Amino acid sequence: MTTNRLEAFSDGVFAIAITLLVLELNVPAGDHLWQQLKDEWPSFAAFFVSFWVIGIIWVNHHGVLDHLGRADRGVLYLNLLLLLTVIFIPFPTALLAEHLKSGEDETLAAVVYSGAFVAMSVAYGILWTYITHRRERLGVRLTDDEVRRISRRFMVGNPVYVIQLIVAFVSPALVLVINAALAVYYMVVGMQEPEADTEPGDQ
Amino acid sequence: MTTNRLEAFSDGVFAIAITLLVLELNVPAGDHLWQQLKDEWPSFAAFFVSFWVIGIIWVNHHGVLDHLGRADRGVLYLNLLLLLTVIFIPFPTALLAEHLKSGEDETLAAVVYSGAFVAMSVAYGILWTYITHRRERLGVRLTDDEVRRISRRFMVGNPVYVIQLIVAFVSPALVLVINAALAVYYMVVGMQEPEADTEPGDQ
Amino acid sequence: MTTNRLEAFSDGVFAIAITLLVLELNVPAGDHLWQQLKDEWPSFAAFFVSFWVIGIIWVNHHGVLDHLGRADRGVLYLNLLLLLTVIFIPFPTALLAEHLKSGEDETLAAVVYSGAFVAMSVAYGILWTYITHRRERLGVRLTDDEVRRISRRFMVGNPVYVIQLIVAFVSPALVLVINAALAVYYMVVGMQEPEADTEPGDQ
Amino acid sequence: MTTNRLEAFSDGVFAIAITLLVLELNVPAGDHLWQQLKDEWPSFAAFFVSFWVIGIIWVNHHGVLDHLGRADRGVLYLNLLLLLTVIFIPFPTALLAEHLKSGEDETLAAVVYSGAFVAMSVAYGILWTYITHRRERLGVRLTDDEVRRISRRFMVGNPVYVIQLIVAFVSPALVLVINAALAVYYMVVGMQEPEADTEPGDQ
Repeated sequence: MTTNRLEAFSDGVFAIAITLLVLELNVPAGDHLWQQLKDEWPSFAAFFVSFWVIGIIWVNHHGVLDHLGRADRGVLYLNLLLLLTVIFIPFPTALLAEHLKSGEDETLAAVVYSGAFVAMSVAYGILWTYITHRRERLGVRLTDDEVRRISRRFMVGNPVYVIQLIVAFVSPALVLVINAALAVYYMVVGMQEPEADTEPGDQ
Repeated sequence: MTTNRLEAFSDGVFAIAITLLVLELNVPAGDHLWQQLKDEWPSFAAFFVSFWVIGIIWVNHHGVLDHLGRADRGVLYLNLLLLLTVIFIPFPTALLAEHLKSGEDETLAAVVYSGAFVAMSVAYGILWTYITHRRERLGVRLTDDEVRRISRRFMVGNPVYVIQLIVAFVSPALVLVINAALAVYYMVVGMQEPEADTEPGDQ
Repeated sequence: MTTNRLEAFSDGVFAIAITLLVLELNVPAGDHLWQQLKDEWPSFAAFFVSFWVIGIIWVNHHGVLDHLGRADRGVLYLNLLLLLTVIFIPFPTALLAEHLKSGEDETLAAVVYSGAFVAMSVAYGILWTYITHRRERLGVRLTDDEVRRISRRFMVGNPVYVIQLIVAFVSPALVLVINAALAVYYMVVGMQEPEADTEPGDQ
Repeated sequence: MTTNRLEAFSDGVFAIAITLLVLELNVPAGDHLWQQLKDEWPSFAAFFVSFWVIGIIWVNHHGVLDHLGRADRGVLYLNLLLLLTVIFIPFPTALLAEHLKSGEDETLAAVVYSGAFVAMSVAYGILWTYITHRRERLGVRLTDDEVRRISRRFMVGNPVYVIQLIVAFVSPALVLVINAALAVYYMVVGMQEPEADTEPGDQ
């Protein structure tokens, strides 16, 4: 199968998952709006962080699929696994926001939230490993060195997720901050890339 | 009509239907979160199974449209019929989850759930039959042998759906398991395919 | 502007509007599920009819844009006007279903429902008129005869919408039936078309 | 990275954000439907205005990306920033509608609403500035004169947004009118453009 429709479908899922986040924001009615908006800060913070994380995963996902010359069934199913974890994000996002607001069972909510991102990271790693192990079959033109370099960069996220899980027990709100920091890290790392694969806009 | 926009529209509908599933998950508020999350297991299970079924239908739908050289109005309308059944999935998914949780009228909910997947299977079969009966007109390059082989594989689902309907009366929760098993079957069968139609990523 | 992204954006809006219809279906909880599902019939009927109407408009919209060699700002804005009326459909659909269920103020709900489809029909007519009046500028290769033939077919809908508005005062539920009949008419008329513009799948 | 998938993803987000607006409309149930619909006018007005603003931003966004020969990470991230502000629009839209209906804390709701559009305008300006400062690198074929002309047109919005913010304190409902007027302005300005970049529909 060509990678066109795989990309189109994935882009659609990413675009919808990222946009559905706004539906988890409660629209405060009635009086004392200013106070109500302030009380909603965990929702806004969680919306903001999840938006950037999904956005950056989309950018990186792009980078991975761009290397593919063709897709086999394995890529399709492992990509679906990744999309499953992406689609799920609005749920733990709303869960954490809800419990940061009420202050009840915040730790568990933060653990679920962290766990969702760990799952996404793992799914991403599996897809990447599958692709790099079948480079010839999938028409991937990456040298061993490039694969190692990109893999090393990915792996930075793993210990951070472990830290995040531990932090969930200490300060649930801090989990959002660490997740945001990780997003910034991937953003900065991405921008320093040589972008050798940038070509004039085909179409 | 060319198949481009047909594919783009279908991909969009699949992507949205699969992503909307997350909206059917209730975000538990307040105390006893762990207990609440455990009580929600039918929602998570239904979400998980429906995700994979829709995902695999998307992969197979792809496989069917890839054979088409062009589309006529019949293909468009029968494709819409299939999409109607796909779009509907979030409703029986939430219905089954709801009634597995409350324990009330579980059997009927499981029957509706099974029925929705039967409807999808039938719509898929009609589209496939229409296409294979107009191979020349639609520019399909498949031999009689290939059509027979693919058709036989599809037909395995039909008796399973009958079993699923019967099981709904015995154990409503088991319906989810059978549906998941069917998804796995289609996945495994799909991976063993020779994938002769895999070509280097055009475009 | 090329018509690619216009088509992609329109396809996206159609795909989402048609899929959001399912969110207007209430998931009945608790006991007496069979009775509850029966009571929900107006929601299912309205879902079903609106699905087909949006689906058929998508097919016809396709047919119109396929004739375009290029798009100017006028096409973009008139297309947005049409999309506005498409996006709005889930609202009157839910409104009619709700009031057919409760039996309160059904007539007004049916008038709003009919009115929404009249608005869509008018928006469609404006876009079509604009395009046919600028055929050279937009690179449309249609003869005067073809334009007349297609226009005549469109115009059949107008008196039917007037009938539908009158029927709303007599029997609100009948409005759904007439709308469905109109959808079938457009479907049948479309299938009898010579489809001269059908070409082998480019891309 | 080529601009294809950037456009596809952005189109998807715009299409979803614009369609989700309909979900913020309450479907009135029960008696006195006519009165209820009249009471909902702020929701309809806000839906209508936000639809056109997002629609026109989409048209202009298009115009900007069409000039790009290729995209770097900076474009991707700044485009995500713009999409963040677009995705957010349904929230302030519902907030303003809600508070215009209840009459409580209307001013603050109108300020938040205006602020959301200011944020979008700023994000748009940053993306545009980034692109025009790296024309060679991004393969943009625009002269200094053209850049100046387009930039000047954009900047008209800024003082209008300031006026809108002030008006929020005087008459919250008037904010909708000003926002609509601004949308009309961009629409008219866009239509007077020479559209030198209009080419026959490729693909």
